[in-house]
Formats: sequence, structure tokens, C-alpha cells
Amino acid sequence: MNKNRLEAFSDGVLAIIVTIMVLELKAPHGTDLAALKPLMPVFISYVMSFLFVGVYWGNHHHLLHMVKNFSSGIMLANLNLLFWLSLVPFVTSWVGENHFASFPVMVYALLLDVCGISYTILQKVIESCNKDNHQVLVLMKRQTRKGLVSVTLYTSAAALAWVNGYIAVVIFFIVAIMWLVPDKEIEKMMK
Amino acid sequence: MNKNRLEAFSDGVLAIIVTIMVLELKAPHGTDLAALKPLMPVFISYVMSFLFVGVYWGNHHHLLHMVKNFSSGIMLANLNLLFWLSLVPFVTSWVGENHFASFPVMVYALLLDVCGISYTILQKVIESCNKDNHQVLVLMKRQTRKGLVSVTLYTSAAALAWVNGYIAVVIFFIVAIMWLVPDKEIEKMMK
Amino acid sequence: MNKNRLEAFSDGVLAIIVTIMVLELKAPHGTDLAALKPLMPVFISYVMSFLFVGVYWGNHHHLLHMVKNFSSGIMLANLNLLFWLSLVPFVTSWVGENHFASFPVMVYALLLDVCGISYTILQKVIESCNKDNHQVLVLMKRQTRKGLVSVTLYTSAAALAWVNGYIAVVIFFIVAIMWLVPDKEIEKMMK
Amino acid sequence: MNKNRLEAFSDGVLAIIVTIMVLELKAPHGTDLAALKPLMPVFISYVMSFLFVGVYWGNHHHLLHMVKNFSSGIMLANLNLLFWLSLVPFVTSWVGENHFASFPVMVYALLLDVCGISYTILQKVIESCNKDNHQVLVLMKRQTRKGLVSVTLYTSAAALAWVNGYIAVVIFFIVAIMWLVPDKEIEKMMK
Repeated sequence: MNKNRLEAFSDGVLAIIVTIMVLELKAPHGTDLAALKPLMPVFISYVMSFLFVGVYWGNHHHLLHMVKNFSSGIMLANLNLLFWLSLVPFVTSWVGENHFASFPVMVYALLLDVCGISYTILQKVIESCNKDNHQVLVLMKRQTRKGLVSVTLYTSAAALAWVNGYIAVVIFFIVAIMWLVPDKEIEKMMK
Repeated sequence: MNKNRLEAFSDGVLAIIVTIMVLELKAPHGTDLAALKPLMPVFISYVMSFLFVGVYWGNHHHLLHMVKNFSSGIMLANLNLLFWLSLVPFVTSWVGENHFASFPVMVYALLLDVCGISYTILQKVIESCNKDNHQVLVLMKRQTRKGLVSVTLYTSAAALAWVNGYIAVVIFFIVAIMWLVPDKEIEKMMK
Repeated sequence: MNKNRLEAFSDGVLAIIVTIMVLELKAPHGTDLAALKPLMPVFISYVMSFLFVGVYWGNHHHLLHMVKNFSSGIMLANLNLLFWLSLVPFVTSWVGENHFASFPVMVYALLLDVCGISYTILQKVIESCNKDNHQVLVLMKRQTRKGLVSVTLYTSAAALAWVNGYIAVVIFFIVAIMWLVPDKEIEKMMK
Repeated sequence: MNKNRLEAFSDGVLAIIVTIMVLELKAPHGTDLAALKPLMPVFISYVMSFLFVGVYWGNHHHLLHMVKNFSSGIMLANLNLLFWLSLVPFVTSWVGENHFASFPVMVYALLLDVCGISYTILQKVIESCNKDNHQVLVLMKRQTRKGLVSVTLYTSAAALAWVNGYIAVVIFFIVAIMWLVPDKEIEKMMK
């Protein structure tokens, strides 16, 4: 099946994205608890982005699992999504190193928005060539609803980052947790 | 099937090539829009090479998909292609950090030429042991035509880089877009 | 099957974790044996963590191999395990660069504890949806016993690190070897 | 089949080993041909190690392809091989940055020896649980003969490195080419 290599390539890229972010956590010179303290913002930004990429991997997994018909359009939309996700390590380290300053956090939030939109494009392209696939349509509907809530929250976070960067961080974690709670409906379909 | 591991290894190498390039995008110290500005050339070179490697992944996918007979020659030709592609991150960062200076851009263009030639060698080796496979022959013909146009454009870009590096960049993007537009004929065959 | 991509993603992340640690082994400027000597602690910590991640890969392989029923819970528990394992390179370089100072070694030991607990959580989640699978239950029992011994030893190592970091290192190697010795019972089941 | 994940994990590790070596090729500050010249030793060492790891991937592919019976011993022997191969990037950069000084080149040659021995151990373990598999035995015999020649040449290179590092480099390339020339006998069997 055609989609196997697309899944393998995406898995590879996502696995690398998630893992190279940890390279930003540079071993401190000190050897006590105090030496770890300045790493906290970098660590928090790592956790945040790890969850974020992990959620994308899970959703991508569910979405591709149900695809029956494959097209070049899907490959393009997937490449587009991977491109934006590949910028996550950059923004993560920018946000972490600057202790969640307003502008970098806003850029982070906007990147999440763009990733969300890219995912939606991938969904639409898949939908357009899998119209008679009931499962895909149900999955879409559920993922789309959650997606809309996410994008709204990301955009609010982009604005609220100007009040305080950490408010945005809290919102990012809320969105991540919302996605991590398993969706019983989707799970039933995957069986 | 023999070719599965070749695809998996190639996917791995291509996924890593594409992702380590983003490590060149180092988080700036500033926290405003101005801090991002000096990163623009590095970013543009990243986008360019991401598209470039993405296109190779797509073509490689189509090509290997149709291979029925496998040989050591294919493994060698594939290793040769991966070698040249693995130099892309190096040239990308050289080009980006030097704001598209003429000589680095020319080297970039020549590397694209060598990658194109390596891909053609892989095609020829595959053709020689899949002669009775009609699909492979049709795919080759279409990819070869586009390949010739690409190599011609890359070589022109290598020359025009001496006038202005950004002219070459525009040409690189034109070639990438030419490949990204799905080929209806190939898509029909992949089904 | 659903679990294929989970295995592929986990393999990718584990392969990258294991390989990026070697980037900490920076080529020395000198060109004689004496130049290699200061690298010894970093090298030892690399060997230790390589074995550690290698053992996890092996256990993960055995565990997932027997899973028949898949759930979102398994994906979450797996993501949680990968998160903690992804911190191994950071702690490894911290421990190596500081010549096994007490506090970093204790943190290393505690991270191994958390990884062990995360693995146990993954086991429990798998068990809860594969209750009628005899093989899974036998494997669990054997892995759980070894797991308890490991966590006890890691925790002792965390305490003994305050006497001397190298005592903890010896314990880490003992645990790794305990896992590396093939379990005849499990092997029989895998056939 | 059990061996799929072992192949996938090995492919991942080998793909990363081969690709992170290119990170040693740091973009020079100059933008002319002269700026590339000091990179030559690093580049040569990269080519050498790329070929070396590529040959291992090919041999590993052939070897695993014929395995029917799987055991924990194979997993251990494979992990051992991957460990030594993972040290290749370190030695490669040491050799390249020091312009093929005698001692680093000798260490490089000895590492190739250890990798060769580890591969032989993997072969023997596979042989011991696939004794009634004629194909495996024939493949072993052919690979073992070449392996003996390689180890002899590597050891000579380790000695000759004290005369001049580049003599050893020539020997390394001769061995690589010897392996890259396809073995008709093996190819026939793979069909």
C-alpha cells in the first residue's frame, strides 16, 4: 500500500523533531539542585512541545489509519504539515531560552495555529478522495470540532502572551491535555 | 520483499537530512521581530532544501513503488544518491549563513546537478533489471523529461549566481514547484 | 494492524536517543592516548546509557509483540515512557561531564526509577485490555519481578551515590547485565 | 515476524550514524574555493565512513534477510554490533580534524577491526540457530572470507598508519570498494 512509506517518513520526521529538542537541554556545569534551576524554562518548553508533537503523531496515526484512497495531494498536504512541525524545535528553544517573553510566545502560538491549519488542509484533501468512507467522515467531524477549539485557544494565547507569557503556557497545556484524553468514539472505530 | 529495507533506510536518511537542517536555525537572543530578521537567509535556504529533499522523497517513493526485480546494483545506486543528498545540509547552511553569496550558491546548484545525475543513474539501473515492466518505463520517461529540464535550470542557476545569488534562488524555487505540481499520469498509474 | 506505527515511532525515538548520546563524545584536540583519557567518564556514561536504552528496546519489543488488543491508553502510556527515556541523553552528559559527582548520579538513578515506573504503567495498561492473553500475563510476571529488583537497586544506587558515584555506576551495570542475560522462558514464548 | 523490528531499529541507528557525521562538515566563513580547502580531510573521512557504514547496512540486509529462526542471542549480538558502529562518528571526526595523524588513524583501524569481529559474532550466533538453512551457510562462507581479508587489511592499516596516515586511508578505500563490488553468488540467492 502506498501510504506505508508516507507513514514511515512522517514517523521518522516526527521522531526526530521530538528528540532533537532535548539537545537544547544542555548539561549544566554545576552539580547541585541549584544548577538545574536555570534550565526550568527550557524544560517546560520541551515538555510542552513534546506533548504537542506527540498529539500530532497520535492524530496523524488515527487519520492515516482510515485512509483507503491515496493521492499526490495527500503527499503534498502531508509535506506541508511536516514543514511547519519541523519549525517547532526552533520556536521551542527560542521561547525557553527567553523565559517565555511575550513576542516569542506569540510566535509559538501562531506556529501552533499554522500547524493546526495545515492539519485541517490534510484532512480536507483526504476527505475529498475518501468521500464514501464513513469512518473518515466521523473522525473528521470529531477532530475538526476539537481543532476549532484549539485554534481559538491558540489565538487567544497569542494575544494573552502580551499580558504574561506564562498565561499562554497554561493555555497550551490545557489544549494538549484536551487532546490527550482519549476519545471513546474514535477508539471504538479504530478496532 | 527485498526493497522494503531499502525504502526504510532511505526514508530514515531522508527524514534525518530534512530535520537536522532545522538545527541551523539557532534561536536568537533578542525577543522582538528585529531579532528574527538576520535569520531570514538561513530560513529561506531551509525552505528551499526542505522542498528539494521532499521532492526527492516523493520521486523515490514513486520509483521504488513500481520496482519488481531487485539487485545489488540498485542498492549501490541508491547509496550513491543518498550520499550526495546527505551533503545538502552542509551546502544549505553555507549558502544561508553567507546570504546567498555567488560561489556557495554555485556549489549548491552543482550539488543539485549531481543529485539529479545520481537519481538518473538509479533510474537507469532500475530500468535495466525491470525492462518488461511497462509502468516503470512510462514513469521513467516522464520523470526523465522533467529531470532534464531541472538539470538545465540548475546549471543556468550556477552561472546566474555570479550575477546575483537570489536569481539562482528564484530558479531553485521554480524547479521545486514544477516537481510539486502532481503529475496526473503518474498518479493514475500508482492506483 | 494499529500497533505497527506505535512500534515504528518508538523504534525511531529510541534509535535517535541512543545515537545522539554519542555526539557528547567530542573529538579531542590531541592525537595521542593521553588525549582520550579525559573522555573516559563521558565514554563510560555513554556505554551505561546505551545498554540501558538497548534493554528497554528489547523489553518493549517483547511486550508489544504479544499485544493483540490496542487502545488509546497504550498510546498514552507509551508516549509517557518515551518522554522519560528522552531525558536520558541529558542526564547522561551531565553525569559524564561531572565525573560521576553524587548529585547528578542520584538524578540519573531517579530517572531510571521513573522510566521503570513508566514501563510498569505501560505493562498495566496493556494487561488491562489483554486479560485473556495468557502469554502477556506470563511475560508480565517475569518482567515485573526483574523490574522490582531493578527499581530497588536503582534506589539504593541513588542513596549510595552520596558515598561515591562510581558505586552507583557498578550497580547500574549489574542491573543492565541482569536484563541482558536472555530469559529462556520468554524466548520460548516468542517462537 | 520478530526480526522486522530488529531490522527497523538497526536501520534507524545506521541511518542516524551515517547522517550525523555530516554535521562535522561545518559551513566555512569564507565564500570562495579556498574556504573549502581546509575541510578536505573532514570530507575524506566522511566519505570513508559513509562507505563503511553503507557496506555494513548492505551486509546486514543480506544476512538478516535469510534468517528464519530468531533468538535473544541475535538481539544481543546485534546490539553489540550497533554499539561499536555508533562510535564511528566520533573516530571519524577525530581522524578528520587531525588530518589523518597516526594515532587517531590507528584507533580508526582498530575500531573497524572490532566492528568486523562483532559482525562475525552476529554471523556465528545466527548460524547456530539456523544450521539447517543452506542459504545462510553459503552466505556466511562468502562473507567470512571477505571479512578475514578485511580484518587483515585493517590491521595492516593500523600498523602502516605510523608510517603515514594516508597509506591507511588508501587501504580503507580498497576494502570498501572490495565490498561494494556486488557478489554475483549472493545476488542469485537473494532472488
